[in-house]
Amino acid sequence: MQLLSTNACFDGEHRRYQHHSAALDCDMEFAVYLPPVAVGSNPQKVPVLYWLSGLTCTDQNFMQKAGAQKKAAQLGMAIVCPDTSPRGLDLPGEHDSYDFGSGAGFYLNATRQPWAPHYRMYDYVVKELPQLVEGHLPVTEGRSISGHSMGGHGALIAALKNPGQYRSVSAFAPIANPSECPWGQKAFSGYLGDDPKTWEEWDATLLIPGASERLPLLVDQGTADDFLESQLNPEALVEACEKVHHPINLRMHRGYDHSYFFIASFIDDHLEHHAQALGLR
Amino acid sequence: MQLLSTNACFDGEHRRYQHHSAALDCDMEFAVYLPPVAVGSNPQKVPVLYWLSGLTCTDQNFMQKAGAQKKAAQLGMAIVCPDTSPRGLDLPGEHDSYDFGSGAGFYLNATRQPWAPHYRMYDYVVKELPQLVEGHLPVTEGRSISGHSMGGHGALIAALKNPGQYRSVSAFAPIANPSECPWGQKAFSGYLGDDPKTWEEWDATLLIPGASERLPLLVDQGTADDFLESQLNPEALVEACEKVHHPINLRMHRGYDHSYFFIASFIDDHLEHHAQALGLR
Repeated sequence: MQLLSTNACFDGEHRRYQHHSAALDCDMEFAVYLPPVAVGSNPQKVPVLYWLSGLTCTDQNFMQKAGAQKKAAQLGMAIVCPDTSPRGLDLPGEHDSYDFGSGAGFYLNATRQPWAPHYRMYDYVVKELPQLVEGHLPVTEGRSISGHSMGGHGALIAALKNPGQYRSVSAFAPIANPSECPWGQKAFSGYLGDDPKTWEEWDATLLIPGASERLPLLVDQGTADDFLESQLNPEALVEACEKVHHPINLRMHRGYDHSYFFIASFIDDHLEHHAQALGLR
Repeated sequence: MQLLSTNACFDGEHRRYQHHSAALDCDMEFAVYLPPVAVGSNPQKVPVLYWLSGLTCTDQNFMQKAGAQKKAAQLGMAIVCPDTSPRGLDLPGEHDSYDFGSGAGFYLNATRQPWAPHYRMYDYVVKELPQLVEGHLPVTEGRSISGHSMGGHGALIAALKNPGQYRSVSAFAPIANPSECPWGQKAFSGYLGDDPKTWEEWDATLLIPGASERLPLLVDQGTADDFLESQLNPEALVEACEKVHHPINLRMHRGYDHSYFFIASFIDDHLEHHAQALGLR
């Protein structure tokens, strides 16, 4: 794990690292924000919020645009931001579209060629990255997870598929029912093949009935989001939750869109939500 | 003035506008953040903080990366971010380097060809843009000004050259004495010619002795800023201020660099400083 850069930020540190990923079989970069108590000569271990970004993003979008560090510094919470796909591979067609291939790993494990050996972002964010972070940085095993759009989908399935691994989960404008929208159908058929049965284990709405842990879902969604009708469908997730009494708090925010201006406006609420679950409040 | 886009942000609005600039003789874009009290069906007029960005920036860097909107929303302060140079001209050599020409207007009025007819960013930010903003948006004539690096230089000279126009001024890592550093010398000789006498009216440190208004200068500077020694020289500004008892508060921040992670860490302090002067506190 090689340190690429460090920036002081709210008396803590924003750092970028590079490492070889065994899960993805390529080199990857990720970013971490360490709050003031976790840096310096006598660092204390702090819990971690994993943030999964949306289509086209890298590890940097959230760190530069969400304005989360001030609250994280106050709470004593680390934030880890992985990239959104394997990098540096140049598989055939990998860079042809913004919603498939590079920048669009969809946080699943691909089974179709040529994606299967590398596009295993689920294993990467759920297993390899936490192990790496917990082995090398001053963090506890207290983990929470959140994300935006494709990354909101990723956060929801990571929590639903791994009871006990995360203390809390939240999402901004998640692709809540990817089997039923164009972004999800393109990704799932490309990475997994055309049989929708194989898609079910990667769809938050379809995972709800079998969820063994009733972790409350906090979901924020803007009403002026251009993708709300065609791609996101939070109502399907709410319906699935209501059927089995899975706790969900869907907050609809009048006039907000899909941008980081929306995320920035409500990220502090999410950090407070995770801080409660992580024992920081 | 044409509205390009609107994003809800902390219950206010981030908007981008395009307009034809008479001062620059080209089309320009700028961004504005309006706090909640200044939007909706019964908008109230609010004072404005003008933010001048550094080399290579557009109107968007500050709006996306500084995390200033939360505090501005609470205070009831608008923020206006102009671009950093004329755009769309393709003058000979205009795009050849990051520190001269496009993205590097240095907030002065050029006198040399081919720059003189267009590179008049001083007139644009001090005269034309405030007139435009005050004529079309719900803002008062209460104005403050701040900026970063090249934009910190711009904020300082705008305030020092226009007694009574700004209620307060501040800067992050300003190019404090441009006549004596490589960035400033390249820009001044290119835009103004080789006679250093003509540079003096565009150099904050050299303007201090003749300043008729003792507006206190708030200057934040990181000690780990890669450009501190070679380009920024806040000590020269402090020395000039001390000689004539011009009030200055230079805050040196241990370990902080030249990035927006530094700006984000201290922008709320600056907004509070300007809010006091603008009568919002």
